[in-house]
Amino acid sequence: MVKVGIVGGTGYTGVELLRLLAQHPQAEVVVITSRSEAGMPVADMYPNLRGHYDGLAFSVPDVKTLGACDVVFFATPHGVAHALAGELLEAGTKVIDLSADFRLQDPVEWAKWYGQPHGAPQLLQDAVYGLPEVNREQIRNARLIAVPGCYPTATQLGFLPLLEAGIADNSRLIADCKSGVSGAGRGLNIGSLYSEANESFKAYAVKGHRHLPEITQGLRRAAAGDVGLTFVPHLVPMIRGIHSTLYATVTDRSVDLQALFEKRYADEPFVDVMPAGSHPETRSVRGANVCRIAVHRPQGGDLVVVLSVIDNLVKGASGQAVQNMNILFGLDERAGLSHAGMMP
Amino acid sequence: MVKVGIVGGTGYTGVELLRLLAQHPQAEVVVITSRSEAGMPVADMYPNLRGHYDGLAFSVPDVKTLGACDVVFFATPHGVAHALAGELLEAGTKVIDLSADFRLQDPVEWAKWYGQPHGAPQLLQDAVYGLPEVNREQIRNARLIAVPGCYPTATQLGFLPLLEAGIADNSRLIADCKSGVSGAGRGLNIGSLYSEANESFKAYAVKGHRHLPEITQGLRRAAAGDVGLTFVPHLVPMIRGIHSTLYATVTDRSVDLQALFEKRYADEPFVDVMPAGSHPETRSVRGANVCRIAVHRPQGGDLVVVLSVIDNLVKGASGQAVQNMNILFGLDERAGLSHAGMMP
Amino acid sequence: MVKVGIVGGTGYTGVELLRLLAQHPQAEVVVITSRSEAGMPVADMYPNLRGHYDGLAFSVPDVKTLGACDVVFFATPHGVAHALAGELLEAGTKVIDLSADFRLQDPVEWAKWYGQPHGAPQLLQDAVYGLPEVNREQIRNARLIAVPGCYPTATQLGFLPLLEAGIADNSRLIADCKSGVSGAGRGLNIGSLYSEANESFKAYAVKGHRHLPEITQGLRRAAAGDVGLTFVPHLVPMIRGIHSTLYATVTDRSVDLQALFEKRYADEPFVDVMPAGSHPETRSVRGANVCRIAVHRPQGGDLVVVLSVIDNLVKGASGQAVQNMNILFGLDERAGLSHAGMMP
Amino acid sequence: MVKVGIVGGTGYTGVELLRLLAQHPQAEVVVITSRSEAGMPVADMYPNLRGHYDGLAFSVPDVKTLGACDVVFFATPHGVAHALAGELLEAGTKVIDLSADFRLQDPVEWAKWYGQPHGAPQLLQDAVYGLPEVNREQIRNARLIAVPGCYPTATQLGFLPLLEAGIADNSRLIADCKSGVSGAGRGLNIGSLYSEANESFKAYAVKGHRHLPEITQGLRRAAAGDVGLTFVPHLVPMIRGIHSTLYATVTDRSVDLQALFEKRYADEPFVDVMPAGSHPETRSVRGANVCRIAVHRPQGGDLVVVLSVIDNLVKGASGQAVQNMNILFGLDERAGLSHAGMMP
Repeated sequence: MVKVGIVGGTGYTGVELLRLLAQHPQAEVVVITSRSEAGMPVADMYPNLRGHYDGLAFSVPDVKTLGACDVVFFATPHGVAHALAGELLEAGTKVIDLSADFRLQDPVEWAKWYGQPHGAPQLLQDAVYGLPEVNREQIRNARLIAVPGCYPTATQLGFLPLLEAGIADNSRLIADCKSGVSGAGRGLNIGSLYSEANESFKAYAVKGHRHLPEITQGLRRAAAGDVGLTFVPHLVPMIRGIHSTLYATVTDRSVDLQALFEKRYADEPFVDVMPAGSHPETRSVRGANVCRIAVHRPQGGDLVVVLSVIDNLVKGASGQAVQNMNILFGLDERAGLSHAGMMP
Repeated sequence: MVKVGIVGGTGYTGVELLRLLAQHPQAEVVVITSRSEAGMPVADMYPNLRGHYDGLAFSVPDVKTLGACDVVFFATPHGVAHALAGELLEAGTKVIDLSADFRLQDPVEWAKWYGQPHGAPQLLQDAVYGLPEVNREQIRNARLIAVPGCYPTATQLGFLPLLEAGIADNSRLIADCKSGVSGAGRGLNIGSLYSEANESFKAYAVKGHRHLPEITQGLRRAAAGDVGLTFVPHLVPMIRGIHSTLYATVTDRSVDLQALFEKRYADEPFVDVMPAGSHPETRSVRGANVCRIAVHRPQGGDLVVVLSVIDNLVKGASGQAVQNMNILFGLDERAGLSHAGMMP
Repeated sequence: MVKVGIVGGTGYTGVELLRLLAQHPQAEVVVITSRSEAGMPVADMYPNLRGHYDGLAFSVPDVKTLGACDVVFFATPHGVAHALAGELLEAGTKVIDLSADFRLQDPVEWAKWYGQPHGAPQLLQDAVYGLPEVNREQIRNARLIAVPGCYPTATQLGFLPLLEAGIADNSRLIADCKSGVSGAGRGLNIGSLYSEANESFKAYAVKGHRHLPEITQGLRRAAAGDVGLTFVPHLVPMIRGIHSTLYATVTDRSVDLQALFEKRYADEPFVDVMPAGSHPETRSVRGANVCRIAVHRPQGGDLVVVLSVIDNLVKGASGQAVQNMNILFGLDERAGLSHAGMMP
Repeated sequence: MVKVGIVGGTGYTGVELLRLLAQHPQAEVVVITSRSEAGMPVADMYPNLRGHYDGLAFSVPDVKTLGACDVVFFATPHGVAHALAGELLEAGTKVIDLSADFRLQDPVEWAKWYGQPHGAPQLLQDAVYGLPEVNREQIRNARLIAVPGCYPTATQLGFLPLLEAGIADNSRLIADCKSGVSGAGRGLNIGSLYSEANESFKAYAVKGHRHLPEITQGLRRAAAGDVGLTFVPHLVPMIRGIHSTLYATVTDRSVDLQALFEKRYADEPFVDVMPAGSHPETRSVRGANVCRIAVHRPQGGDLVVVLSVIDNLVKGASGQAVQNMNILFGLDERAGLSHAGMMP
C-alpha cells in the first residue's frame, strides 16, 4: 500500500483525490491537512465520503507526519508547495503538486504571471511536468511532479498530434476554451456564486490567463520551435468539464488527420480519439480520467478544428495526479481510475 | 461470473446498470436488448462507456439468448416484463424488474393506476419486493424481484422506523417529495425539455401519482395496519436526486428519535443515518447507492420531520437492482456499489 | 414624478428595484447608496442597466440627500434601517424597508431571532406590514412600510383564505417551502457557490428560520387566534422563485375551496388563482409581480394542499416594494409592474 | 394601433412575441394561429401570459383573417412562410418572417442547406434582410422582411466594423459561437432534454450549420467581396443567450479598434459597445433587445477577438422582429423594447 498524504484537502481537487483514492486498491490516505479546518473529520465537510474515511480528520500540516508518507499531494493555492516541497523531498517523500508551483520551467516567467517571486527555483530542475502522454518515462523516475493545469491538459492533448507531426502553421494557433465553474475552486468570489454564474456565459481574462504560458511551453516542446497562441477562456454554467475548441491551419491538406490522431494515442489508456465526425460532450467524461478528442476539417478547407474534453477535476487535476502516482510507484496506470463517466 | 442480460437498455436506468456493472467484479453483461436500436454498439449511444463495453451492441430481445443468462434485468416501461418474465423464469433465469410491473401485490390496484389489465397476475405470488432493508431474506431466495420505485425507496426508508415502532399517527402522514428530471426517463415529453424544466420548480400529479399505492402498500406492511398518506411530488431542475421531506405526528414525545433511526439501520450497508441536526443534500449521494436520512423535531413539538435523500438512478433504481442481484447470488452485498458519491 | 432614494443598492433586491423603476412612468431614482462601492456607476456593476441609468453612481449614504427624496427604499441587511429610518421620517421622507427590521411587531421576538437588540422599537407603532392584499388601506396612509419577506409572502397568500374563513385546523399547519438561490442574497457564503448549490437539493434551517415568526404573526392576524406552524425551507438549484406547498386539514369538507380562493382574490391585481387542478410553475412568474395559487384536496380527503409561487425578488421583495410605493403615493397600483413573466 | 397576426405561435419565438407585444403601446395581437392547438387560450399554454391575453386563443391559420391584419409575423418552421406569404402580401398585409425562408438571396443555396426546393423564389426580390443596423432604410419601405437568425445577428454585428473598414484578412475569419438550448426551439428531440443538455457542453454541426451561408452572405455584403468563414456552434446548458467569440487578423495594427466600434454603433439604439477590456455576459441582455460587444487584441498581436452577446429569443428573433415592425410602421424604434435585461 502506498501511504498518501494530502496537503490542503478542503478544496475541490482535495475532495476529488479522496473520492478517487477511496476506490484505489493500492493506496491509502493516512494524513490530510488543513490549517483552517484542523480537527474536523473529512466526512463532516464532504458527506459523500461518509463511510469511506471515518477515521480521518484534517490536521495542521506538519513536515514530520507528511514526511512519513510515501507520497504527498499538494492540492493548495500557488506558493504553498514552494515552501514545503523541499523538506519533503529531503525526507525521501515523493511530491505530486496539483498547483501551478512547478509547472513553468522558467522562474522569471512564473513570477511575472503569479505576481510574486518563485519560492523554490532550485527544485525546478527536478520537476517533471506530469503529462503522461508526453513524459511517461521521466515521471517513472521523478521525485517531484507538476500536475498540468486543466486548460493545459485538454489543449495540449488536442494540439500535440498536429505539432509533433509538423503539419500546422504554428504561428496562428487559437484555443477557444470553456470551463465549468468548479475550475475556479471553492474560494469565495462573487463570480462563482450560483446567482451570478447560472444562466449566463462569458469570456474572461482575454487579456492574458495564467495557463497561457504553461500551454505555450508545452506546445513549444511538441513543435520543437516557437508557437503563437491565442487563448480565450470562457465560463460555462456547469460544475465540471473543460471543452477546448482548437483551431490550426494545416500546411498539407493531404494528411489523414483521423489516422494521425488515432496513431498518436493508440497506446494511451486515458485518451480516446473518437470516430470521424464526432462531437465529444463534457458529460461523457464526468468523473472519469479520460480525454476525448475529435478532429474535423470543415468544408474540406485548411483550417483544422480539434474538439477536446476532460473533467477538469479528474484528468484536469486529481485523476491525472493519481495517474502520475501509479506510474511513479510502478502500479497499473489504470488503478483506481478505471470507472466510466457518469451519464446522465 | 454472473451472466447478466438487460432488456430495454437505452433508457437512463439501462445505462446506469451498464455503468455500475462495468465495475462489478463478479458480473458480466452478455446481452442487452433494444428493438429500436438493434445493432448499435452501446458505446455509440452512451460514449461514457467507450472502452468498457466495446464488443457489446443492442440486440432484438430474444427469449433464448436472454434465457441463457443467470439473471435478466428489465429496464423497460411497464407492461414489458409482464410479457417476458414468465418464459425466462421457466428457463431458470432469475428476473430483476426495475419497472412497476410486479411492485403492487394487488393486480386490480395495478390495473387501476396503470390503465391496463395486469399482464401476469399468476407471477405475483413469486414476486418479492426488492427493498433489502425490509425483505433481505426473501430476496435471497427469490426468482422474481420487483425493484422499488425511486420515490417509494426514499419515502419508505424515511418512514419505516417510525411506523415499525408504532409511535406515529399513521392516519396523517405527508410525503412532500422532490425529484430531479431524470426520474421522468429519457422519453420525449415537453416537460422534460431543458428550456421547460430549468430555472423552475413545480408540483405535479397532486391528484394522484402511481407511486402512491406502492408507498402505501409498503407503509401498511411496516405499520401492520392501515395508513393515510398524502403524497405530493415536485420537479427539481437537476438531473439526479430525490429528496423526501416527511411529516408525521408522534404520539409519544419522549422517544429518542435519533437513537431509534440509528438502531434501525445500524447494520444496513446502504442507509446512512446522519447526526442530529443534519440536512442531507442529494448531491452527497450522487452516483452512489446510498440513502441518507436525518430526523428532526422542530421546536420540540410533536411533528417529526424526516429528510431522506437518494440518487433516483442508483439506490432508487439500478444500484438497488444490483444490490438485489448481489443478495440473490450470495455475493458481497456491496460488490460494485462501494464507490463514494460525487461532490461537487 | 416620485423622487426615489435607495439605500444599499448593490444587492439583488437593489438591482431589481433599479430594473423595475427604470420602466416606471412616475418614479425616478435620484440617489442610490453603497459605502463599499461609492463612486461606481450602477451600470458598471450591473451591465443590464447600461443605457438606463447612465448618470447614476453609488454614493455614500447621507441623510440630507436621502431626506430630499419623496421615498427611500432600504435594500439592506437587517439593522441598517433601524439606524437611519427615524431621521428620514422626521425629514418627511417615506420609508419602505425591504429588510426584516420592522416586520415583527414584537421587538423582543425580533431580538431573539436576529441576535441583537431591536434598534428602533419606538418606530414599530408606525410600521405597516406591507402586504397589500391584507393592509392596503393602512399602506395608503403609512409613512414606514415593512415589506414582507419572500417565504412569508408566498405562504401567507396561500393560507389566508383558509384561515380567514375559519375552516382549517390552525394548530397543524405545514409550510414546505422551496427557494431559489438568490433568496440568500449576493453575500459570499460557501453554500451559495455554483458548484455547491447546483445539481443538488436540500432542506435547511429545519430547527428554526427567521421567517417563521413573521409568517406566524401574519397567520395569527388572519385566524384571529393562535396557530401552530411547521415551516421547512429548502434550497432549489435555480436563481429565482419561491414555491410554497402548504398543508392544512379542513374541518368542513363541504366548502368549495376553489370558489373560496377565487372570491378572496377577485379584486387583487397581483394574485392569480389558477383553475382547479393546476400546478403553478415558478417560471410563470419569473420577473413578474404576481403570486399564482392553486388549491387541491387530493383523493377528496380533508387535507388541503395549496401551491403558491412567486418570484422572490419581485412579489417577494422589490416588486412588492414598488407596489407599496404606488399605493402610498396614490398611483395606479400596477404602474411599472404590468409586464408578463418570462417563459422560457 | 398596429393590428398584428402571428402564425405558429406555440413555439418559443411565438410566446416571446406575445410577451413583448403585451407591453407595446402601439400594437395589438388580434390573431394567433396554431393548427395543433386551435381553440386553446394562449394563456393556458403559457401561464406567464395570464391576465395579458385573456380573450386570445389559437386558431387555425386562415388567409382572410390574417390578411385583415396590418402585419403578420411568421414564427414557424421553414417552409411555412413560403406557402403563405404571397397571399398575404397581395392582400396588402406586411410580412415579417422569423424563419429562414427569405434570409438567403439565392434560392439554390437555400435549397441546398434546407433540403427542399425554395417555395417562393418570386418573392425574394422583395425580401429585405431585417438587420436594422445594416438595412434600416430598406426596412422602412419593405413589405416582406426576413428577420436574421440568432447566430447571424450576434456574429454579423461583431464582425461588421472590421469588414466595413477593410482592415481584416477576410479569408480567415473564425466564429466560435455558443447558444443556449432554447435556440433549438420547443421541438421534441433527445438532445434538448434537460437530462441530456444540463451539466454538459459540446460543439455540434461542425461539418456545416444552416446559419453558415446566412452569415457568409452578410459578411460578403459588408466586405464588398469574398470571405472565408469557419463557424463552430456549441450548446451551452442555459435557456437563453448567444455568445459569439470572433477571431480575425487585422492587416493594420495601428487602427484604434475601440474607437472604430464605438463610432460604427454610435447611433444604434440596440447595440452597446462596452468599454475596452470588457467581457459581456449573456445574462446582461437576458430578455432585452440588445447586442453587447467588446473588442480585444490580446497581447497586442494582430489577432482581434470580438465578444458579442445577445438573447437569442429577443435581439436574435422576436425582439428584432418587433424592432423591424417599429421601423416599418414609422413608430419609435424603441417602442415595446426599452426594458432592461434581467440580472440576476
